Amino acid sequence: VSIIGSGNVAQHLAKAFENSSDVELLQVYSRNKSDLQHLPFAAKVTDNPNGLHAADLYVIAVSDSAIRSVAESLPFEGRLVVHTSGSVALSELDAKNRRGVLYPLQTFSKKRKIDFGQVPLCLETEDPNDSVLLEKAARAISGSIFSMDSQQRKAMHVAAVFASNFTNHLYALAADLCEKYSVPFEILQPLIIETASKISELPPLQAQTGPALRNDLPTIDAHLAMLPDDNFKMIYKTLTQSIQQWQKATKN
Amino acid sequence: VSIIGSGNVAQHLAKAFENSSDVELLQVYSRNKSDLQHLPFAAKVTDNPNGLHAADLYVIAVSDSAIRSVAESLPFEGRLVVHTSGSVALSELDAKNRRGVLYPLQTFSKKRKIDFGQVPLCLETEDPNDSVLLEKAARAISGSIFSMDSQQRKAMHVAAVFASNFTNHLYALAADLCEKYSVPFEILQPLIIETASKISELPPLQAQTGPALRNDLPTIDAHLAMLPDDNFKMIYKTLTQSIQQWQKATKN
Repeated sequence: VSIIGSGNVAQHLAKAFENSSDVELLQVYSRNKSDLQHLPFAAKVTDNPNGLHAADLYVIAVSDSAIRSVAESLPFEGRLVVHTSGSVALSELDAKNRRGVLYPLQTFSKKRKIDFGQVPLCLETEDPNDSVLLEKAARAISGSIFSMDSQQRKAMHVAAVFASNFTNHLYALAADLCEKYSVPFEILQPLIIETASKISELPPLQAQTGPALRNDLPTIDAHLAMLPDDNFKMIYKTLTQSIQQWQKATKN
Repeated sequence: VSIIGSGNVAQHLAKAFENSSDVELLQVYSRNKSDLQHLPFAAKVTDNPNGLHAADLYVIAVSDSAIRSVAESLPFEGRLVVHTSGSVALSELDAKNRRGVLYPLQTFSKKRKIDFGQVPLCLETEDPNDSVLLEKAARAISGSIFSMDSQQRKAMHVAAVFASNFTNHLYALAADLCEKYSVPFEILQPLIIETASKISELPPLQAQTGPALRNDLPTIDAHLAMLPDDNFKMIYKTLTQSIQQWQKATKN
């Protein structure tokens, strides 16, 4: 397997393949060779596209907008090439190579260690014959493999925006409230972890609690009065209303 | 310490005091004695308010709307009585007793075990002399103790609605999307846990990722097109806009 790219996902994937005993990390291609010099696989990094050797699988781990041009610029044909994006269609890859997708559904930061063996990998191949090869490579680095088409992968990506990006923004709003009222945000951390952990046992619809669910109007009004600006109030009202709509729909 | 109430919080508190070596659980008062018969402290349960013995501390763990009447109905005076609500003022308690608050900032379900030693307890007493006693009782069951006034406690409660109730609703929306597109919601669980864990190392404002932050309009439009109804779209737009406003404000 060779990796193309030098960002967070490229680095985590390269490390995972380098540590795997079933698959060999052949090369890592990056125009910015120096970005990767501190990593254990530094000796395998090349910045010469024509220096890419024949691999069974090439993984393009670059930003969504660069996938098309990187795939077009590859100086070979007929090989299996996959990208790692949740929202880009398989068809964005140049058809001169066999095409697929390996989308790791996780949030990667340079500062956080991730146990890659637990990261769900969403796989897609254009040719069913390639699915065996892609699955073998994926299983070498993760115990959590799912096959899905481009439409399903895009739906997962939207769901991930709700469950991760938007959730993180709510944490940021909570942290801001804590700062404004001079209470430490750390107090909320056990609650945040328990809320996230709970849904592995209880479907989130059943796990719902709080004033919106109870239609506790005095508390809702008291909360709105404490919120510092219209943006906070808008989000509070929108989510409270949505919780109440859902509860109604579930009861019916 | 005696507990008044039979709900989730009352049960978790009674268990925690029963297991503590520093504080004795004297009695648990509940009108519904049978609700508590399966618990290890069943022998200490009474349903006779006049059978309440003299304790150093009474903890009223009942629903917000019942706190006032329960406090009024207590057949004694001059003792330390606290409630456990995040949103109810200390002054809701009857002034015939010494008043305080012990608010455990956690989400309690009957089905989930909670390590009470990790639950943050927010304390308030009317008379500063009572703070020593309340703190001693709190420290007997938790390693995480915070003193704050009613205003700060209410702010924590609003922040907890954002960080927990609203977050859980976003999980429910994500689960619904997964169902609609026939992908398993479990795929999102490692991402959800990582998003929640990340903020113990990285402030949520810095941990933000996603199309809203990158102002990635093609992805945002593609996501909106995949959302099944106006409620989903409203929430997507409101939170996307809020993330972008915040990012702007932070850059300035």
